[in-house]
Amino acid sequence: MEERSRILIVGATGYIGRRIVKASIALAHPTFILFRKEVVSDVEKVEMLLSFKKDGAKLVEASFDDHGSLVDAVKQVDVVISAIAGNHMRHQILQQLKLVEAIKEAGNIKRFVPSEFGMDPGLMEHAMAPGNIVFIDKLKVREAIEAAAIPHTYISANIFAGYLVGGLAQLGRVMPPSDKVFLYGDGNVKAVWVDEDDIGIYTIKAIDDPCTLNKTMYIRPPLNILSQKEVVEKWEQLSGKRLNKTYISVDDFLVGMEDQSYGEKIGISHFYQIFYRGDLYNFEIGPNGVEASELYPEVKYTTMDSFMERYL
Amino acid sequence: MEERSRILIVGATGYIGRRIVKASIALAHPTFILFRKEVVSDVEKVEMLLSFKKDGAKLVEASFDDHGSLVDAVKQVDVVISAIAGNHMRHQILQQLKLVEAIKEAGNIKRFVPSEFGMDPGLMEHAMAPGNIVFIDKLKVREAIEAAAIPHTYISANIFAGYLVGGLAQLGRVMPPSDKVFLYGDGNVKAVWVDEDDIGIYTIKAIDDPCTLNKTMYIRPPLNILSQKEVVEKWEQLSGKRLNKTYISVDDFLVGMEDQSYGEKIGISHFYQIFYRGDLYNFEIGPNGVEASELYPEVKYTTMDSFMERYL
Repeated sequence: MEERSRILIVGATGYIGRRIVKASIALAHPTFILFRKEVVSDVEKVEMLLSFKKDGAKLVEASFDDHGSLVDAVKQVDVVISAIAGNHMRHQILQQLKLVEAIKEAGNIKRFVPSEFGMDPGLMEHAMAPGNIVFIDKLKVREAIEAAAIPHTYISANIFAGYLVGGLAQLGRVMPPSDKVFLYGDGNVKAVWVDEDDIGIYTIKAIDDPCTLNKTMYIRPPLNILSQKEVVEKWEQLSGKRLNKTYISVDDFLVGMEDQSYGEKIGISHFYQIFYRGDLYNFEIGPNGVEASELYPEVKYTTMDSFMERYL
Repeated sequence: MEERSRILIVGATGYIGRRIVKASIALAHPTFILFRKEVVSDVEKVEMLLSFKKDGAKLVEASFDDHGSLVDAVKQVDVVISAIAGNHMRHQILQQLKLVEAIKEAGNIKRFVPSEFGMDPGLMEHAMAPGNIVFIDKLKVREAIEAAAIPHTYISANIFAGYLVGGLAQLGRVMPPSDKVFLYGDGNVKAVWVDEDDIGIYTIKAIDDPCTLNKTMYIRPPLNILSQKEVVEKWEQLSGKRLNKTYISVDDFLVGMEDQSYGEKIGISHFYQIFYRGDLYNFEIGPNGVEASELYPEVKYTTMDSFMERYL
């Protein structure tokens, strides 16, 4: 059996980062956590870091404002996975340019996974503002990675189930509604829904695999390719309750975006891409792409029926 | 064996609330969690609520703005424990007056534990502003409880170790410093430091106990009565590193408070009470008080030596 790669995880206390840590430890990789000095005042993050440490991870102190400290951290491992925030509330994607510089200088990294884990930014040139900022910045990071010839894998993880399945893709809620539900358009556009723990597992599976080298890995578990309406119907079956359905036309949806804050506009424009345009599933995976559930059929991924049972 | 009381926990996702939930489930009490509608947009809180549910707790939907929903929630249980936020950043203590109203109307509650878990507000008439707001508001809640003749226990849990031991009581940090440390005064004033999980366990132990009825229970584990200097020295021994010590006079400390925000001033004035005045340990427990480690010697509480090992 080969020695398992040593993995450094950046953004480890975040929503996806903590799943990647869990998977890395579960799959017996020596796991290193970048611990940023700014965190010392945040008791919740420190608690999480200490729980990773208890589970066997090593904390490595470094700062994005200290290039040398990043280089030193990177030199301790074989693989770097970044899950730094890139959502509608906190957008730190371009901080990774500093990480790319450090990886370039260290020269020892066999694989880098930058923080993407959503829609493939390489296919989102058409995306609506202001949500497109996320894709534009992720592409800037890709450019830097490729210019430095750093071995990499990009991961398109599609919809985080905990955000959008629990709330049946209702804006601003992550628990199922009890009476009524809004459907986008006719509710029939296909999307791809993925359990966050599975994202962690597939990510760790990919990092030592030559099949994913310099490719984009899409996570498309076949049973989880569902329209919003199918998700709503699954919930109705599970809960035994019928919900009143209101169908929102694309025009009404976009008008509703106008009064929102900048952060909310980013979120809403991503809903537009997913549920009106179908940007998660309106393309075939090309020659530079691979699909996770095909590569790793041994992973027993969570279906959305099973995922939704926790809300009953 | 007696039937165990059914417990409703309010503020369950908070820093102390989550420990009380864990202890309630561990000690096999039927555990109910007040689930406030406002939480449906907060994915982190929802995740925690779902993890409680998975561990066997029941979520009960209610709102502080809907008296009937609170009464209905309270009627399902025997005991109510509130751990609603009362810290320097979020102060919701007076919201509990609505909970007291609901408990009064429901009429079935055998024990109510309001959110205190710090210094005993009954002994803090002399406290400095603006930190005294916390004590003043906790006393208003006590008055309402006593006016309604609700059976109760007040819990004085002293210093939360995760906040102040890890950072050696340095303001604004919860991880040990690596080079220098500030000591308050001569560093010799005694304080009482308690592991948060132990606070959860002692709280649950107290709720069915006639000895704690209508009393204040102080948590003073004998081995954890330590000065700041003793805590610092324990860390130096454990880590094998000497820290440079700077002693801060009370005048310098209070001058440093002036430029801070309101929330920070509350925190700093509590540091003053604890580390200069010695308000955690400068009194004998009176006839209306009991001490947790004496009442429940079977609890193997965590010593601070053991607690600090997690930071090594």
